Amino acid sequence: TLERTVFGCMWGVTAGLAFKLCKFVKNAWEMGVNDPRKFIHCLKVGIALSAVSLFYYWKPLYDGVGGNAMWAIMTVVVVFEFTAGATISKTVNRMCGTSLAGFLAIGVHWVASRAGDQWEPVIVEVCLFLLVSAATFSRFIPTIKARFDYGCMIFILTFCLVSVSGYRVDELLELAQYRMCTIIIGSILCIIVSVIICPVWAGVELFVLVTGNLDKLANSLQCCVAQYFGPEAESNDEVPDTKLLGYKCVLSSKATEESLANFGRWEPGHGRLNFCHPWRQYVKIGASMRSCASCLDALIGCINSDNQASDDMKKSMRSISMKVGSDCVSVIRELATTIRKMTKSSKVDLLVTEMNSAAQELRSSLNSCPNLVNARSHTTKPTQTETASSDDVAAKVEIPIMEIIQVVTVASLLVEMVARVESIVEAVEELSD
Amino acid sequence: TLERTVFGCMWGVTAGLAFKLCKFVKNAWEMGVNDPRKFIHCLKVGIALSAVSLFYYWKPLYDGVGGNAMWAIMTVVVVFEFTAGATISKTVNRMCGTSLAGFLAIGVHWVASRAGDQWEPVIVEVCLFLLVSAATFSRFIPTIKARFDYGCMIFILTFCLVSVSGYRVDELLELAQYRMCTIIIGSILCIIVSVIICPVWAGVELFVLVTGNLDKLANSLQCCVAQYFGPEAESNDEVPDTKLLGYKCVLSSKATEESLANFGRWEPGHGRLNFCHPWRQYVKIGASMRSCASCLDALIGCINSDNQASDDMKKSMRSISMKVGSDCVSVIRELATTIRKMTKSSKVDLLVTEMNSAAQELRSSLNSCPNLVNARSHTTKPTQTETASSDDVAAKVEIPIMEIIQVVTVASLLVEMVARVESIVEAVEELSD
Repeated sequence: TLERTVFGCMWGVTAGLAFKLCKFVKNAWEMGVNDPRKFIHCLKVGIALSAVSLFYYWKPLYDGVGGNAMWAIMTVVVVFEFTAGATISKTVNRMCGTSLAGFLAIGVHWVASRAGDQWEPVIVEVCLFLLVSAATFSRFIPTIKARFDYGCMIFILTFCLVSVSGYRVDELLELAQYRMCTIIIGSILCIIVSVIICPVWAGVELFVLVTGNLDKLANSLQCCVAQYFGPEAESNDEVPDTKLLGYKCVLSSKATEESLANFGRWEPGHGRLNFCHPWRQYVKIGASMRSCASCLDALIGCINSDNQASDDMKKSMRSISMKVGSDCVSVIRELATTIRKMTKSSKVDLLVTEMNSAAQELRSSLNSCPNLVNARSHTTKPTQTETASSDDVAAKVEIPIMEIIQVVTVASLLVEMVARVESIVEAVEELSD
Repeated sequence: TLERTVFGCMWGVTAGLAFKLCKFVKNAWEMGVNDPRKFIHCLKVGIALSAVSLFYYWKPLYDGVGGNAMWAIMTVVVVFEFTAGATISKTVNRMCGTSLAGFLAIGVHWVASRAGDQWEPVIVEVCLFLLVSAATFSRFIPTIKARFDYGCMIFILTFCLVSVSGYRVDELLELAQYRMCTIIIGSILCIIVSVIICPVWAGVELFVLVTGNLDKLANSLQCCVAQYFGPEAESNDEVPDTKLLGYKCVLSSKATEESLANFGRWEPGHGRLNFCHPWRQYVKIGASMRSCASCLDALIGCINSDNQASDDMKKSMRSISMKVGSDCVSVIRELATTIRKMTKSSKVDLLVTEMNSAAQELRSSLNSCPNLVNARSHTTKPTQTETASSDDVAAKVEIPIMEIIQVVTVASLLVEMVARVESIVEAVEELSD
C-alpha cells in the first residue's frame, strides 16, 4: 500500500505539472496566433542556422574555413533579432567592433613581440587593461549606449581574444582573417534572411505603435467623456473598460518607442518610409501623447472620485463638454490618419480651430453657470421678505458650488487636454514638414 | 599657396574634431566623477579580464585547457555587468543554458551517429531546426523573457555548436567537458570580482531609486503648491525649476525599476536586505508613485494655463490648500523614511489621518466659497433697488466663478492627489508586512 500511495502521489504531482505545462503552452500558442510574425521569426532563425550549419556539413566549405565556421554560427545566433533594424544594427556593430579590435590587437601584439619574450605578456596585459577599461567606460555614455553598446562589447571581446591568444597561436594574422571572414558571412546571411523573408521593420513597428497609441488615446477620451456626460444607461455599461483604459498603454510605451526609433534609423528605405525618415520625431510625438495621457489619467481619477456632481449641473454642461471631447477625439483621429497617409492634412487646421472654439465656448459656458444658479434664486426672491431672501440666496447658492466642483474640474481638465492635444498637433506638423 | 590652403583646411578640420573630442571626453569624465562606481566598474572588468587571461600566459593552466581558455575570456566579457544581480543572473543563465544544451546536443549526436553517415546530418538538422525554433519562440513569452532570455540564447548557441561540430570533431565529449569547465571558471571569477570588489547591488539601486523618487515627488509637489499659493516674491523665483520638474523622473523610471527588480531577486542577502526581499513590491510602489506623478503633471498644467484665478480667491484658499499640500509632502517624506529605515512607521497613520482631515477641510472650505461671494454681494444689496440689485448680484457673482475655476480645479486635483498618496501608503504598508 505504501508503494501505491507513493505512486499515487507521484502521479498527482506529474499530472499537476503536466496541467500547468499544458496551460503555459496554450497561452504561448495563443500569443503566437495573435501575432503570427512571431512564428515566422522562429522559422527564420531556424532557416538561417540550418543554412550556416552547412559550413560543417558541406566538405568544400569546411575545408575552406575549418573550425572557424563556429564564428559564423555564433554570429547568426547572437545577431538575429526580431526586427530588421535591430539585426542590421547588431550586424554592423559586430563587424565594425571586430575589425577595429582585430587591427588594434594585431598591432599591440606586433609591438609586444618586438620587446622580447619576457616583456611581451606585460605590454599586452597593460594595453588590455587600459583599452578594456576605456571601452567599458564608453558603454556608460548615453549616446554610445543607445547605438554602439553591442559594438563596444564585441570590441572588448575580440581585442582580448586576439591579443591574448597571440601569445600561443603562431599564425595570428591568418586566424584573424578567417574569423573576420566567417563573421562577415554569418552577418550577411542574417541580413539577407531578415530582410527578404517576411521582414519586420522596426520603423513600421514604430509607425504602427504611434498611430495605434493615438487611436487608443482617442478611444479612451471618448469613453471617458461618454461615461461621465452620457445618458445613464450608457454609463452603467461596464463593457468598454478595456477601451477606457487604453491610455495606460500610451503611458508605458516610452522605452519601446525609443528602442524602435534607434533601430529604425539603421534600416534601408522600404515601402513609403525612406532611409532618412525622421524617426526621432515619432519619439517627440510619443512624449506629447504621454503628456495628454497623464491629463486623461487625472480626468478619469476625478470622474471616479466620490464627490459627485448634481445632475442639473451635468446636464447644463453636457452638450458643450461632449462637443469639446468629441472635437479632441476627432483631432486625434485625424492626426492618426495624417500619419498613416503621410500627407499634410487639410482638415487638421479646421478641426483644431473648431476644437479651440469649443473650448472657448466651454469656458464661457462655465462663466454663465452662476447665472443659472442666480436665475433660480431670483425667481424665488420676490415672494419673500428682504432678510429671509438673503439667507435663502446664501442657501441656494451654497448647494450648487459643492456640486459644481467636479464638473468645473472636469471642464478645466478638458480645456487643459485641448492645450495638450495642440502640442501633439505641433509635433505631427513638424513631422510632415 | 594651394598646398598652404589645403594644409590650413586640414588643420582646421583636425582642430575642430579635436575640440569636439575634448568636449566629449570632458562630459564623459564628468559623468564618471558624478558616479565614481562607474570608474570602479571599469577597473573591475579590467581586473577580471587580466586574471582570466592568465589561462594563456601561465603554462600549467594553458596545458590544462588549451584553446578552450577562449571560452573563459568570452564568458567574462559577456557576463560582467554593472550590478551584481545582473552578473549573477547572466552567469546562472549561461551555465544552465550551456549544460542543458550540451547534454541535449550530445544525446542528439549519439542518436544520429547510430543512424549511419548518410542520415546523420539530416537527423541533426531536423532536431536543430525544431529545437532552435522552439527556443526562439520561448524568448517571446514575457515571463521567460524577463528572467531567462539570455539563457535561451546561450541554449541555442551551445546546442548548435555542439550538435553541428559533432559531425567533424571526434572527441566531442571531451571538448564539451573542457568548454563547460572554462565557462564555469569564468563565471565564478565574474561572480567573485563583482561581489567582493565594491559590489553594486541591484536591490540597493532599486531601493535608492524608489526612495529618491519619493523625495523627488515630494519636492515637486511642495514647489508646485508653493509656487501657486505662495507669496508673489517666491513664485517669481525661477530657481527651483529642476526641483519642480523632478516628478518627470518618476514618470520615466518604469523600465529601470522593472529590470532592477528582476536582477535584485538573484542577489544573495546583503546588508539589511535578505535573499527573499519582496522586490516586486517596489515595482508596485513605483506604479502608484507614477499615478501620483501624472496627477501632479495635470496639476502643474492647470497652474500654468492662462486663465488665472483672482488673488482674493487664492488668498481665501491659500492656508488650507498649502496645508493639504504640505501634509501630502510630509506623508510622502515619511514613507521614504519608512522605506529607508525598513521599519513600520508609527507616524504614518497619524499623518495620513491629518492629511485626510485637511482634504476634508479643503472640501468644506470650497463649499463655503459662495458664502464669501454672497457676503460681498449682500453688503451692497440693501442700498439699491430690487431690480438693480438683481442685475448687480448676477454681475458680481459672474466674475468670481470665472476666477474660481482654476482654484477649484487645483483644489480638487489636490484632493485627488491625497487619494493617490494613500495608494502609495497602502503599497508601502504591504511591503513592511
